[in-house]
Amino acid sequence: MPEVRVEEAQRFMEESLLAGGAPLSEAKAHADLLLHADIVGHYSHGMNRLELYINDMKSGVCNPHAEQIILKETAATAWVDGCDGLGATVGNFCMDLAIKKAKEFGVGWVAVKRCNHNGMAGYWALKAEKEGLIGMSFTNSAPIMVPTRSKQRACGTNPISLAAPATGGDSIVVDLATTTAAMGKVEMQVRKGEPLPEGWALGPDCKPTTDPQLAFETGHLLPLGGFEKTSGYKGYCLSAMVEVLCSGLSGSRATHNVPQWSHTQTEAPNLGQCYVAVDPDCFAPGFGERIADCLQHWRNLEPVDPTLPVLAPGDKEKKNAKITNARGTIMYPQSQLDSAKIFAERIGIRPLEAVKA
Amino acid sequence: MPEVRVEEAQRFMEESLLAGGAPLSEAKAHADLLLHADIVGHYSHGMNRLELYINDMKSGVCNPHAEQIILKETAATAWVDGCDGLGATVGNFCMDLAIKKAKEFGVGWVAVKRCNHNGMAGYWALKAEKEGLIGMSFTNSAPIMVPTRSKQRACGTNPISLAAPATGGDSIVVDLATTTAAMGKVEMQVRKGEPLPEGWALGPDCKPTTDPQLAFETGHLLPLGGFEKTSGYKGYCLSAMVEVLCSGLSGSRATHNVPQWSHTQTEAPNLGQCYVAVDPDCFAPGFGERIADCLQHWRNLEPVDPTLPVLAPGDKEKKNAKITNARGTIMYPQSQLDSAKIFAERIGIRPLEAVKA
Ligand SMILES: NC(=O)c1ccc[n+]([C@@H]2O[C@H](COP(=O)([O-])OP(=O)(O)OC[C@H]3O[C@@H](n4cnc5c(N)ncnc54)[C@H](O)[C@@H]3O)[C@@H](O)[C@H]2O)c1
Ligand SMILES: NC(=O)c1ccc[n+]([C@@H]2O[C@H](COP(=O)([O-])OP(=O)(O)OC[C@H]3O[C@@H](n4cnc5c(N)ncnc54)[C@H](O)[C@@H]3O)[C@@H](O)[C@H]2O)c1
Repeated sequence: MPEVRVEEAQRFMEESLLAGGAPLSEAKAHADLLLHADIVGHYSHGMNRLELYINDMKSGVCNPHAEQIILKETAATAWVDGCDGLGATVGNFCMDLAIKKAKEFGVGWVAVKRCNHNGMAGYWALKAEKEGLIGMSFTNSAPIMVPTRSKQRACGTNPISLAAPATGGDSIVVDLATTTAAMGKVEMQVRKGEPLPEGWALGPDCKPTTDPQLAFETGHLLPLGGFEKTSGYKGYCLSAMVEVLCSGLSGSRATHNVPQWSHTQTEAPNLGQCYVAVDPDCFAPGFGERIADCLQHWRNLEPVDPTLPVLAPGDKEKKNAKITNARGTIMYPQSQLDSAKIFAERIGIRPLEAVKA
Repeated sequence: MPEVRVEEAQRFMEESLLAGGAPLSEAKAHADLLLHADIVGHYSHGMNRLELYINDMKSGVCNPHAEQIILKETAATAWVDGCDGLGATVGNFCMDLAIKKAKEFGVGWVAVKRCNHNGMAGYWALKAEKEGLIGMSFTNSAPIMVPTRSKQRACGTNPISLAAPATGGDSIVVDLATTTAAMGKVEMQVRKGEPLPEGWALGPDCKPTTDPQLAFETGHLLPLGGFEKTSGYKGYCLSAMVEVLCSGLSGSRATHNVPQWSHTQTEAPNLGQCYVAVDPDCFAPGFGERIADCLQHWRNLEPVDPTLPVLAPGDKEKKNAKITNARGTIMYPQSQLDSAKIFAERIGIRPLEAVKA
């Protein structure tokens, strides 16, 4: 696969966002969000999505100059209007607010309406973790999950994330879509031309499919757990829980009213998001040691296959980041570089440069 | 199946708990917790567990007279010592505190160590829901979940629960173990003599099993999602998330150090629990209407099988409660009545009386 230097990927994303109309600070912030996804190996949420964000700015669906408004506030809570800002702009505003409140009052709980897509949920949880807090973030999304027993899709991949600091700079990072797999992963299987594992998605006939293109076009993902007898309703319940915390609290659109994210979107999605920070210092001393003890215990469990060690939540992404940073480059499929080339021409910026083979 | 009048089941549980040494108020509170489980159809967490609670009091593992202590407090948070009280005693103390804080400051976040088993997690979330708040509760437990890739068990069924009020007295209630199935459900399959669905548990050879007795003895449950390719690591991650909120914040035992709950336990389990309440009034107006809209949307989805309507989270339990209350009786398997008889003799109370056929 072609390789692109990390700085070059960053340059390309920043210039694209600038060309799309974002102010420098927000272009940098949003590029950082996308770059993080590519560095930790969640390619579906990195450069892969860049064009969608630019299109949203060009069409006016996203207003990168918007300033967020606090509509209601108590010591520990805030209700915010995201005013259709860029995902990173709104995410930074809300998580900074939650962090400030957590540091003062133990908890900061922020719900925000009129949001655009905010990338990897875990990126926001990690922002609080870096401040020594527990961070959590949730967002609703477009309806592509088929609830248990239903023929129709109605719920979202609505991710749940939590990051918590351990001693020695270590951490637990939980960051997952409440479907068996996120749609971005189906997309990447399409790009790679590889079939889906069983249990990810349904075809148009409401039967399971392993055809990534068919699954992508149908857009019927199964909730975590799969079918009813293997407790697939739990994934549906978790998605509903995120819905309560996002559209419920913020007054945004509910998932079943969110339009699918497309290249030609004309209406602001008005997503709902929720950002929470909790200060462990308000509870039992020794939080970081206890988290470190869990991490150590899990990592040292005897694996079924000695070549596949037991991972702690967040380890996969940390390992990917280590490899990427050591190599200094991100690997993108050729098809993605090809679309980046056409895209660069269209918006008039210097094309993305791959490392010479 | 034999039927027992609801009042008779309640009488029997209260008298058992009194005979076990609980003060009247706590016997009533704990019986209410167990009765709720039987009424909503989660029999594994009702009368089925009564004897274990009594044994814990008799052996001194549980102190039903303990008064809980607030060890640290801010406007929105509290760190509590449960002092090995009964599950319902500690649950009521902590959720009442969370509710009080939420009403004053928008959020109440309480973490508590030195807890005993607190039954259905959703019971606690519903306590806040009845006050017009979002309620959440989490608890760690004994290690019976096998993390992805591991040969050994290390995590708990660590349940997640959230309840949120809708208009018209309706609600969303999410209440689920982070394993595919809770151990109590495996137990009930043993009592009923029925096999397990595939994907619930592993046998001693680390291979899937459908033998409920073998699964019960092995005590190796799979995380929600099952194996790695169907994202079983997400169930493991969610269990880890609960661990952070419970033992992480409270300083209780981590799940991997909790002894299995048995009839002859001699050591206090020192579980960690977390109770959270959030006041929707601190956010966008119209919360109850939005939750009602989601409920209506989900319930009206076209079902694959017309005889199996799409349910909203919490509907199954509401339907069971309606049937039970209309009938006025709870159905218990004969084996459970038989053990209740022996148990009543042992502790010297009037036996549980079934309705004459
Ligand atoms: N903004 C949105 O609308 C939206 C919607 C869906 C997903 N997303 C994002 O997409 C990304 C991918 O989501 P996903 O559900 O495909 O993630 P995923 O299936 O890769 O799961 C990721 C989580 O599982 C952990 N994990 C993976 N393998 C593990 C193992 N063997 N043992 C223990 N833990 C393991 C990871 O560390 C991480 O916490 C996430 O960042 C998510 O937030 C965003
Ligand atoms: N205290 C503890 O240590 C502990 C540990 C594990 C479980 N538990 C409790 O055990 C009980 C049972 O847990 P479980 O995981 O077996 O529960 P479960 O598998 O029965 O799932 C229950 C949840 O799924 C919802 N649900 C069921 N079918 C549905 C459908 N078709 N559509 C939509 N939603 C549906 C229910 O309304 C509920 O919210 C819970 O009350 C839990 O809190 C307690």
